[in-house]
Amino acid sequence: MDAVVIGGGVIGLAVAWRAARAGLNVAVVDPEPGSGASNFAAGMIAPVGEAEFGEEAVISLNRDSAARYPSFVAELELDAGRSAGYRQTGTLHVAVDADEQSALERHYRFRQELELPVERLSSRQTRDLEPGLSPSIRGGMLVDSDHQVDPRAMIPTLLQACSRLGVQIHRSRASLLVEAGRATGVALDGGQRIEAASVVLAAGPWSGAVPGVPSDDTPPVRPVKGQILRLRGSPEMIARTIRGGSVYILPRGDGRVVIGGTVEERGFDTSVTAGAVYELLREARALVPDVAELELVEASAGLRPGSPDNMPMVGDSTTPGLIIATGHHRNGYLLAPATADAVAAVLAGGTWPEATRPWSPSRFRRPAGVGA
Amino acid sequence: MDAVVIGGGVIGLAVAWRAARAGLNVAVVDPEPGSGASNFAAGMIAPVGEAEFGEEAVISLNRDSAARYPSFVAELELDAGRSAGYRQTGTLHVAVDADEQSALERHYRFRQELELPVERLSSRQTRDLEPGLSPSIRGGMLVDSDHQVDPRAMIPTLLQACSRLGVQIHRSRASLLVEAGRATGVALDGGQRIEAASVVLAAGPWSGAVPGVPSDDTPPVRPVKGQILRLRGSPEMIARTIRGGSVYILPRGDGRVVIGGTVEERGFDTSVTAGAVYELLREARALVPDVAELELVEASAGLRPGSPDNMPMVGDSTTPGLIIATGHHRNGYLLAPATADAVAAVLAGGTWPEATRPWSPSRFRRPAGVGA
Repeated sequence: MDAVVIGGGVIGLAVAWRAARAGLNVAVVDPEPGSGASNFAAGMIAPVGEAEFGEEAVISLNRDSAARYPSFVAELELDAGRSAGYRQTGTLHVAVDADEQSALERHYRFRQELELPVERLSSRQTRDLEPGLSPSIRGGMLVDSDHQVDPRAMIPTLLQACSRLGVQIHRSRASLLVEAGRATGVALDGGQRIEAASVVLAAGPWSGAVPGVPSDDTPPVRPVKGQILRLRGSPEMIARTIRGGSVYILPRGDGRVVIGGTVEERGFDTSVTAGAVYELLREARALVPDVAELELVEASAGLRPGSPDNMPMVGDSTTPGLIIATGHHRNGYLLAPATADAVAAVLAGGTWPEATRPWSPSRFRRPAGVGA
Repeated sequence: MDAVVIGGGVIGLAVAWRAARAGLNVAVVDPEPGSGASNFAAGMIAPVGEAEFGEEAVISLNRDSAARYPSFVAELELDAGRSAGYRQTGTLHVAVDADEQSALERHYRFRQELELPVERLSSRQTRDLEPGLSPSIRGGMLVDSDHQVDPRAMIPTLLQACSRLGVQIHRSRASLLVEAGRATGVALDGGQRIEAASVVLAAGPWSGAVPGVPSDDTPPVRPVKGQILRLRGSPEMIARTIRGGSVYILPRGDGRVVIGGTVEERGFDTSVTAGAVYELLREARALVPDVAELELVEASAGLRPGSPDNMPMVGDSTTPGLIIATGHHRNGYLLAPATADAVAAVLAGGTWPEATRPWSPSRFRRPAGVGA
């Protein structure tokens, strides 16, 4: 093989598909592709609304990836012959009380200073846009360019595109094979070996526990638990993603609605707790009262891969032939196009794009000679 | 057969088991035994705490059935060789605010006048009994004789006892066969006929829609939706069933906890709604704050069979050979022993016990010559 990808989440599958599209022979190894955080994520493609203070450096990278979505999805749907569930709906941030109104004003000014495309709205303007909002909404901020993709469409579509382009999917755990200091492939559960010129480590929060990875190259990822609700009801309730102070309500346009999501440091715990479900429903009802009428279809939890600075780790490891692509935290779907394009370019013999240098895993490496 | 029972919920299975125990040849017909309200119920055996104003007449019937539980369960467990999940835990009613405290006082006086075994507790006494209660609890009422059974143990145990006693279980829908004005058995989906001396109609909320039942004998049941939550966590959180103004929290003693339950008139709708889950969790947290820490394992809805006066319909129909046993509403588990004993006695050639006469379906019959 030219490349074998460890991990069949949105990052691993996007890398495999883009590499296969570039003409490479690719395999993906995952015990259950698309069953991790990629299955539970809401799929917000929101680089503007989710931009955080102190993260100005990464905003342009995030926006660049979001800008790739239309062509990424068009090519993917062409290859797969089915929809990837990308929808350009815009996102409406709202404030329900004076504190949230102040916070929203700060968020607005921050984005305005960076010349990001945001529009401040009065209470009246906000509710005119989305009549389903609570009468107590104090004001809003419209981000017309923040969109969404449906993970429950995207993952099967990526798998289908991979399949059509000849990507092998091995349903197994993997361990890395290293010979003479160079990654040479992976071994599967049954002992089968897949030799490959390059190995991409994209196992999300489990990337730190893949056997055979040299300790210097083990990505410092931790699982960041997110609890999320899936509901169903009237397609007319809201048209845009509604973002409150602590929850978002994301409509798929067909009556399906997602309410998310908690951010919890609890190790590899995927239990759904009464407290989280309660808080999500409470906050969502405060924004859109008719949420109470929706059918609750699923309450679940996923584990995002978080790095020490919560930014992705995408780049070379110290072991030749081993590439790291994990740590995307809350931005796996947002950053899949930019990540896949960069990794596929390197797999095809190119170099890392200048833009993705901030993602290099080298930033977490111990200086030589320091420590044990 | 001596008897065929249409419906394999707790009532139908208890009737079949008791009749088989009396030496009769019995069959039960149900597309999916134990899958209706019997599967979702909490299993409160609470004739004292649940006694309602204006229902004095039925309280002694309910208490009589509750009193049968220990021997009913002992015999059942002997026959089945497994636990029925009956636990004598007592129930603690609590009030979280002044309004609930007034209501609780009225409930207490009503029960005291009827000489029911209840004990009024101060805030301090209430929390001494159950330290997991919220500090804001105003007071309590202890009902030491109100217990519980675990439906998820009871149903498989009833099925096992039936199986061991030779009861045939047919997984099919049934239609009633009537010849020369007399019920003679049932026909199954595939056309198979089961002849029987007696037919017991115990199909819960579907009892009004069994083909072949003469219109005069069609029980006027309606589905009464109940949404309920199942959780898991610390076995020490509470020891007794906690009953608040609008919810109950029922501990199984092994960390499993049930929070219920709504009472909704919505036809044959078993959807779980965001609003109901939210309200149940909100009310439960107000009683026992640590509920928030529990894992939410299941949110579901069942359909109780309600009669026009919400009391059971157990007795003869106007069609010889056809017995009605449905309409148990919120009291299916509570009333299973008294119902099964009465129906089994009649199937064995006896007469209806005097005590169950108030349950006779004849109370809903149109006087002869009136109407179309």
